[in-house]
Amino acid sequence: MPVFLDSTSADFETRFAALLSAKREDSPDVDDVVAGIIADVREKGDAAVLALTAKFDRLALTSDTMRFTAAEIEAECARVPEAEARALELAAERIRAYHVRQIPEDAAWTDPEGATLGWRWTAVSAAGLYVPGGLASYPSSVLMNAVPAKVAGVERLAICVPTPDGVVNPAVLLAAKIAGVDEIYRIGGAQAIAALAYGTESIAPVDKITGPGNAFVAAAKRRVFGKVGIDMIAGPSEILVIADSDNDPDWLALDLMSQAEHDESAQALLICTDAAFGQKVADAVAKRLETLARRDIAGASWRDFGAVITVSDLDEAARLSNRIAPEHLELCVADPEALAAKCVHAGAIFLGGWTPEAIGDYVGGPNHVLPTARSARFSSGLSVMDFLKRTTMARMSPEALGAIGPAAEVLARSESLEAHGLSVTARLQKLNG
Amino acid sequence: MPVFLDSTSADFETRFAALLSAKREDSPDVDDVVAGIIADVREKGDAAVLALTAKFDRLALTSDTMRFTAAEIEAECARVPEAEARALELAAERIRAYHVRQIPEDAAWTDPEGATLGWRWTAVSAAGLYVPGGLASYPSSVLMNAVPAKVAGVERLAICVPTPDGVVNPAVLLAAKIAGVDEIYRIGGAQAIAALAYGTESIAPVDKITGPGNAFVAAAKRRVFGKVGIDMIAGPSEILVIADSDNDPDWLALDLMSQAEHDESAQALLICTDAAFGQKVADAVAKRLETLARRDIAGASWRDFGAVITVSDLDEAARLSNRIAPEHLELCVADPEALAAKCVHAGAIFLGGWTPEAIGDYVGGPNHVLPTARSARFSSGLSVMDFLKRTTMARMSPEALGAIGPAAEVLARSESLEAHGLSVTARLQKLNG
Repeated sequence: MPVFLDSTSADFETRFAALLSAKREDSPDVDDVVAGIIADVREKGDAAVLALTAKFDRLALTSDTMRFTAAEIEAECARVPEAEARALELAAERIRAYHVRQIPEDAAWTDPEGATLGWRWTAVSAAGLYVPGGLASYPSSVLMNAVPAKVAGVERLAICVPTPDGVVNPAVLLAAKIAGVDEIYRIGGAQAIAALAYGTESIAPVDKITGPGNAFVAAAKRRVFGKVGIDMIAGPSEILVIADSDNDPDWLALDLMSQAEHDESAQALLICTDAAFGQKVADAVAKRLETLARRDIAGASWRDFGAVITVSDLDEAARLSNRIAPEHLELCVADPEALAAKCVHAGAIFLGGWTPEAIGDYVGGPNHVLPTARSARFSSGLSVMDFLKRTTMARMSPEALGAIGPAAEVLARSESLEAHGLSVTARLQKLNG
Repeated sequence: MPVFLDSTSADFETRFAALLSAKREDSPDVDDVVAGIIADVREKGDAAVLALTAKFDRLALTSDTMRFTAAEIEAECARVPEAEARALELAAERIRAYHVRQIPEDAAWTDPEGATLGWRWTAVSAAGLYVPGGLASYPSSVLMNAVPAKVAGVERLAICVPTPDGVVNPAVLLAAKIAGVDEIYRIGGAQAIAALAYGTESIAPVDKITGPGNAFVAAAKRRVFGKVGIDMIAGPSEILVIADSDNDPDWLALDLMSQAEHDESAQALLICTDAAFGQKVADAVAKRLETLARRDIAGASWRDFGAVITVSDLDEAARLSNRIAPEHLELCVADPEALAAKCVHAGAIFLGGWTPEAIGDYVGGPNHVLPTARSARFSSGLSVMDFLKRTTMARMSPEALGAIGPAAEVLARSESLEAHGLSVTARLQKLNG
């Protein structure tokens, strides 16, 4: 049973605060192992990657067979059922259409003093995308990472996906092909991250690495951060559904379970304005949990971290939502736009009862890589911006330097940075003859 | 003496690669100490911060005197010389005018299927800004961090600045006041970062921490990352000047020294198309180093990490620049815009001989917090975006769900995420009667 909270009860604040601070994930400390693997790959290159792949994935590769050939990719893609291939193409098309709109504009202007200022966006040259093997090998995540990179203009996009015992998920290769990925390597773990960051004889280094992974992959990404850029380190998934009583309890139950089925550490929360309706949703969850294929996972998540919270009105719901800062926020109320305006910390908002969160995981268009663990207070989901960087531009006319240079001289002097000041002074002397 | 390289010599590639990979900074490993300080502040709050301040800053504070009062701020600000105050105001105004243009636009559209999509930007609620004490206590850095935060709409902006032995830099307080900072605490080090991230009895926690600091501050920022957002961990400063022979060697010498004087680990590089001109600049540097106040620091940087590189043409200069990915790039050539178009990895570009890099440190308008250590390959300088986050929005009409929902069902099934699929199926069943 999840917890049931009522915002009018005396112990609500204590219990809500406990819910917020509940530790849902115990990451094993693999940092020392990962440090060793990275050092190994930096020192021995391909040989280290191949040895580690033999050890962890029980797969004998060579420098020549590490990378999927075009023919191998074609053969795997042909194994994907037609309906699935069409669905992946529709998803890619919609994700592309959404992300193209994120491309930011360059700017340039000349101010009254004669300074021409602005900025320019350019793409990261090479990016690497990690794709987990096994159960969590999701083709949808390939699209969500690769499409924005290609929309941004990344010239070289490499994927690493482990294939334990040689087992390949053909849909992952098809998603990569649809997204325009340039290189696919059948390697995984910390050794794949090290290879992408530092390069080997067969794998050229990249500038940025994104994509989810297990504790080894996460620790490796933290360690190579600085040498390359990384995306966020994602925690377990979360959903908050805010609903009035005018909803089908079974729809909401399924939305809650679609997060809970990801992971025993996932969190599904419901805020409603009517305790009786909240109970109906909880009953619908219990019923669905009887038959759901992943009922053990979803049931554990719902039991350990789920909650049904009754509030007095939707303003109170918005205030609690802002403290939760959920990854996914579903607003199943009569005027979802009005409520959304008050919910200022959330990774993604799904408006109205006809927008189940799962639509956003696949074909909605927005990205499904979103900030977890309350980090929506300060960060955003993956976007085209993650594969771009901005260069600021400035050009002074002699007159502009004459107008604002003296202030720079004063400030440089006050900061005891003499050469800073002199670099302006030398020019002003020439200007003033 | 800096190194002199010629791109046509046989050993150029080896020597240039060595220059690129030169390790300029040895960060002391203070991570264990910092972990202890953070744990201490989380456990004991104010008491820990006060004890650590007494120990490291030789300053006896109480919970009541940790924060500067409005009267104390006024009194300190009154000590700033008039010319410096006016220069700070001009700088703040120009930084604000530049950064206001960075505010991104929200978006919303409805696609042919009936899906209303878009995104919305909102500000981080509370931010903390670290300002070093002592020599590197720069009021210009206060403006460069605080103005973008306030332009973004951050409601609560707190500064922590250590005041060892009680010594305050009044210009830092004035810069904070001009920028609209809300709270100023006279604490520093890892204890200040811990207080900002986790909060104490007297300091409310923030959501994002920015600003430079020593090894303890940098280690603390790495450790609280995830609990709060952080900006980059900055390395030593760098400049690359690309110049043709039609420049005053002394101007360029001063530009090179304005980076070198920051830090013995700073790096100043010159690329020119004429070896004789390169020698003239090196001679001008040697002359300036005779009298410069910070000649020991600037001289060590120039000697250990400086370089004068002669290339065949400006296209080759651009290719080398892209491998360096400099923090600051000065283009002192006849057509700097044309050359800038080829230099795609740089934090900030300064165009033409009348734009010394120092102008960008103070009053140009663009931010002076920029990516170092080749990270301009994948990251950008500080901006308004660092204090904003994006929420993606989606609303499906029943018809839109009817059109794209089946593809989501297919993909959910292929990823063995049954509840994901059912949350769509339940709605489609209602839609299709």
